[in-house]
Amino acid sequence: MKIPFTKMHGLGNNYIYIDRFACNINDDWLPYLARTVSDVHTGIGSDGLILIQPSKHADVGMRIFNKDGSEGKNCGNGLRCVAKYAYENGIVSETSFRIETKTNIVDADVYTDAGMVPYVTINMGMPILRRSDIPMDGDDRSSVVAEPVVIDDQSLSLTAVSMGNPHAVFFVEDIRSAPVETLGPRIETHQLFPEDVNAEFIEMISRNELNFRVWERGSGMTQACGTGACAAVVAAVLNERAERGEDVTVHLDGGDLYIQWQDHGDVLMTGGAETIASGDYHFHIT
Amino acid sequence: MKIPFTKMHGLGNNYIYIDRFACNINDDWLPYLARTVSDVHTGIGSDGLILIQPSKHADVGMRIFNKDGSEGKNCGNGLRCVAKYAYENGIVSETSFRIETKTNIVDADVYTDAGMVPYVTINMGMPILRRSDIPMDGDDRSSVVAEPVVIDDQSLSLTAVSMGNPHAVFFVEDIRSAPVETLGPRIETHQLFPEDVNAEFIEMISRNELNFRVWERGSGMTQACGTGACAAVVAAVLNERAERGEDVTVHLDGGDLYIQWQDHGDVLMTGGAETIASGDYHFHIT
Repeated sequence: MKIPFTKMHGLGNNYIYIDRFACNINDDWLPYLARTVSDVHTGIGSDGLILIQPSKHADVGMRIFNKDGSEGKNCGNGLRCVAKYAYENGIVSETSFRIETKTNIVDADVYTDAGMVPYVTINMGMPILRRSDIPMDGDDRSSVVAEPVVIDDQSLSLTAVSMGNPHAVFFVEDIRSAPVETLGPRIETHQLFPEDVNAEFIEMISRNELNFRVWERGSGMTQACGTGACAAVVAAVLNERAERGEDVTVHLDGGDLYIQWQDHGDVLMTGGAETIASGDYHFHIT
Repeated sequence: MKIPFTKMHGLGNNYIYIDRFACNINDDWLPYLARTVSDVHTGIGSDGLILIQPSKHADVGMRIFNKDGSEGKNCGNGLRCVAKYAYENGIVSETSFRIETKTNIVDADVYTDAGMVPYVTINMGMPILRRSDIPMDGDDRSSVVAEPVVIDDQSLSLTAVSMGNPHAVFFVEDIRSAPVETLGPRIETHQLFPEDVNAEFIEMISRNELNFRVWERGSGMTQACGTGACAAVVAAVLNERAERGEDVTVHLDGGDLYIQWQDHGDVLMTGGAETIASGDYHFHIT
């Protein structure tokens, strides 16, 4: 059977999007479909599959399947693409709307240009700062800001932020020499973090601009991590290196994001979303 | 601009195919187009780009660009996909026709089923057996069959065959324990082969069936190598382990090929070709 698809990416984070308003797919097929369509050799090739679908509680719903067929959690880059698709294809008619994910409902705002959507802002919610909720070892209920730690014989200054997933943020003088590949995997699985952690290295360029590189929990070196960029800006504010209520430009390997920790507490993430291709996928049930 | 594309694969060897009968593209854009469309993060994702185009000397022409933008040489798996596309889309109307490549003209035969083409036979030409033409060191003008060699302290029995590119073939008792990853790279760059060599390990199952694994020159472990499968069957005949004029089934990691070394000298390769997806690629000139 032929399944209509759109391939989109945000900062290089790429998924196959299937519009269930236009074409329904049996739920039972989704894990197999995600695996086969994501294989670059015999499928289209992607980080996974995202379904854009009706929602009872919001304007549009989404489900994410990873390339191994498991169901995924939120993905900031994927949310921006869903918002772009929903507006450009008339699923929503307002520029502000709500998207239901597996775990929550998020607010999206699209910027439009002649009916197309080059940028999207997603409300990523409030950061979680209490040590035990990161989660991070130790029974302190306060936040973890510039805490001295020794990892792999190196003395580091750690700020810990959860955006629903845990992040360990470190400030460096020069992003090019940051030990992402060497220290990243040691930090990821360090005993301080019972659920492991994403490791982010940040070079402040000014109070409104920073360079960012990430070692993602379970994925290693990646080009972009939306929640990591949010955690970086929250950490910069906590360390008095950036302002709350102001946009900070985050330069990631895959492109730029614009992050604002609002005065009332939520973190807004603005970034691009691009359509790569659209057409029919030839799906074979074996 | 939107460029109509088809993604196809033969044994997992996958390319983006663009039909220049339907949509012409400026020649100057092709290297950039190949790089961008092949990138799985921001493009569709593929081993490269193949143009299907008019030919002055054959029924249809093709050009291959690798994913790094360089122009490629022949590709057996790509030839089968071009033949399938040309027949299914009415570029040719007969089931036997000729395809012009960068270096030569090859004969193709398509098998049809309700207007679709599940299998294609490509005439891969005559094998080159003279030692100096493989090319392989030593001034012997005869062929290289079961020649004792020592590589990395291991005693091996080498048969050398060129199918336009050089192949070093070794027979093993059990394909699962073949030292593809360990000896492959040592054979590839061994001083015996001035232009390097593809290393193939073969387990004969019967006189008409063999298991095959390959270390490809410049690519390492790959799922399939069409010229390598041809070289394997020629080597099996030279070592009196298979018959000339009979089909031999070659099991590769990516699927099966059916190879016949014809009595009059040419090698025929038969295998599948599959359409993965078709649609429009959103191409941005930067």
